[in-house]
Amino acid sequence: MQDVFNFSAGPATMPKAVLEKAQQELLNWQNLHTSVMEVSHRGEAFMKMVAEAEQNLRKLYHVPDNYKILFLQGGARGQFAAIPMNLLGKNQKALYLTSGHWSKLAAQEARLFANLDEIDLLEQGKDTLQVGQLDFSDIASKYDYVHYCPNETISGVEIFDVPNVGNTVLVADMSSCILSRQIDISKFGMIYAGAQKNLGPSGITLVIIREDLLTQTEQSKIPSIWNYTVQANRDSMINTPPTFAWYLCGLVFEHWLAQGGLPAIEVQNKEKALLLYTYLDESDFYHNNVAVENRSEMNVTFTTGDSELDKCFVAEAQEHGLLALKGHKVQGGMRASIYNAMPLSGVVALVTFMEYFANTHKK
Amino acid sequence: MQDVFNFSAGPATMPKAVLEKAQQELLNWQNLHTSVMEVSHRGEAFMKMVAEAEQNLRKLYHVPDNYKILFLQGGARGQFAAIPMNLLGKNQKALYLTSGHWSKLAAQEARLFANLDEIDLLEQGKDTLQVGQLDFSDIASKYDYVHYCPNETISGVEIFDVPNVGNTVLVADMSSCILSRQIDISKFGMIYAGAQKNLGPSGITLVIIREDLLTQTEQSKIPSIWNYTVQANRDSMINTPPTFAWYLCGLVFEHWLAQGGLPAIEVQNKEKALLLYTYLDESDFYHNNVAVENRSEMNVTFTTGDSELDKCFVAEAQEHGLLALKGHKVQGGMRASIYNAMPLSGVVALVTFMEYFANTHKK
Repeated sequence: MQDVFNFSAGPATMPKAVLEKAQQELLNWQNLHTSVMEVSHRGEAFMKMVAEAEQNLRKLYHVPDNYKILFLQGGARGQFAAIPMNLLGKNQKALYLTSGHWSKLAAQEARLFANLDEIDLLEQGKDTLQVGQLDFSDIASKYDYVHYCPNETISGVEIFDVPNVGNTVLVADMSSCILSRQIDISKFGMIYAGAQKNLGPSGITLVIIREDLLTQTEQSKIPSIWNYTVQANRDSMINTPPTFAWYLCGLVFEHWLAQGGLPAIEVQNKEKALLLYTYLDESDFYHNNVAVENRSEMNVTFTTGDSELDKCFVAEAQEHGLLALKGHKVQGGMRASIYNAMPLSGVVALVTFMEYFANTHKK
Repeated sequence: MQDVFNFSAGPATMPKAVLEKAQQELLNWQNLHTSVMEVSHRGEAFMKMVAEAEQNLRKLYHVPDNYKILFLQGGARGQFAAIPMNLLGKNQKALYLTSGHWSKLAAQEARLFANLDEIDLLEQGKDTLQVGQLDFSDIASKYDYVHYCPNETISGVEIFDVPNVGNTVLVADMSSCILSRQIDISKFGMIYAGAQKNLGPSGITLVIIREDLLTQTEQSKIPSIWNYTVQANRDSMINTPPTFAWYLCGLVFEHWLAQGGLPAIEVQNKEKALLLYTYLDESDFYHNNVAVENRSEMNVTFTTGDSELDKCFVAEAQEHGLLALKGHKVQGGMRASIYNAMPLSGVVALVTFMEYFANTHKK
């Protein structure tokens, strides 16, 4: 059988070695003769597993000691609501920097619970999607926190520099770029991510938060499962956590550490993105509309410029074992999500197919 | 190897056939050459799977047509917050009937968001835990809804009759008794359950709600992932759902339908509970403190009356392949959770061990 590569934007490809290990021990985990999904989350075996998962993540991502790591439920969308509930303070106002669909949705959801200002980072009147200047140090102190999304999954716009917000708390939705490259976590008050791109399966949400932001009490009017203080004090186990998803995240962390950690991941991600964007730039058949400095290393969008031909591309690619290349419905065209678990060989296969398709469909 | 039986209160034993199927197709689901956890939740294959899961649940549990079925995140604990947010109406007040730990916690969490009254259902001054009268029709109309918990997992107190609340909306946390026996769903406005006892793995929450209660709007100050109207309009996919957990729930529904559905489940559950309680009543070594009419068919609690001996029981039972019999920390003693997926042979093995242990430790 030919190799199959799955370019889904999330839920997305997982490392094959992780799935194989999960499969092998699905009915008998740690020789307990039960599945990991059947054991108590408060039992010794599971507690040991999550402690190791946390240690591995700290090591992999260089999480500073003064940051707590939480594993929650509800996805990034849940956090869109939880963030204002937890982080609004004396100013009772937040600033949302937007650069596409998800950062705008984060602001829209937050408006249900907060007073906020919104600033569009995209430069107007350009042919390409380009993020403008990121210095907000002059206005940031008016706000309790500043929120942004470093990688917009739908349009493929990535922000590599970290906005300057002075001493104000910076919050980032890293759902689609977490663990894709090393970041300086100390620049952020909180980062968070739905797991289903670079961490594991859907159904679990990672929150990394600076300890001094844990100022909530049990009486705060925040659903307990999203009260960061309560969850930090209870090892993210105020209620039954999504144990199987947590276990898989642990396997993913272990896997990447064994593969060389973030430096190795980063090299491969840059190589994959370079290969694909270089081909796109050389091609006069496909187009990408993101400015070079904001091209996502995780989600590469392109189009032939002809929506019928795009449909044809997606269908033929699938026949060639290249799955889920259809762009998001709000954007159209194609999107290749090349998260950490996508091997270089998958991108090589994609570029090879793109050449073949261009040659056979050129007018 | 001896058989192993896992009496964990949740996450709990899953049907072995379900785990075996999940294992077999973990890396290649529906011949797509990807895992079910790697495919898009909006893709054709996954959408078809969840539609079948819903149909199977409707058939299995006789869910009336005017009820919507939602699969959400955040556990029952999340719903403790979501319920007042969604269901408070003209009265701006709810009634919480309590019968143990979880129903009290539900009230405690709801107090963060609602004005409510609380009535303890347990009769005072009795030697055993006994639920009193359940007619609240005279006062119920003052409230927007009445909440209770038909099965208290920790103490093993089950309420088999449905409280009479007149025309007021009745809401039930069925986390630990859902699908254990047929209920008349039309008596309820909403029932909900964390999956990790009778439905599947942890990390997914079932809500069955009468359509006329879907009166929220997108502007309601409710986190979108818990806005029942929004989720009902979006097939529970306003954000990426916990796809693997949902898939496993689907396999569980399919499994029980093939086994004869609720009538077969119910017969086996009554047989298991009868076997265990009959032995407890005949024994002068073990004690259960729940009134006969409120003895849970799902969670059977017992103690030797000596906490050191209880510890010894739990440890020896584990050596005999009978796992997770330790009672909840707030209760002590032992607890055998005998949900749907616990075979009769597991209860037979437990009673056999209990006899052996009593004989070898009798004073």
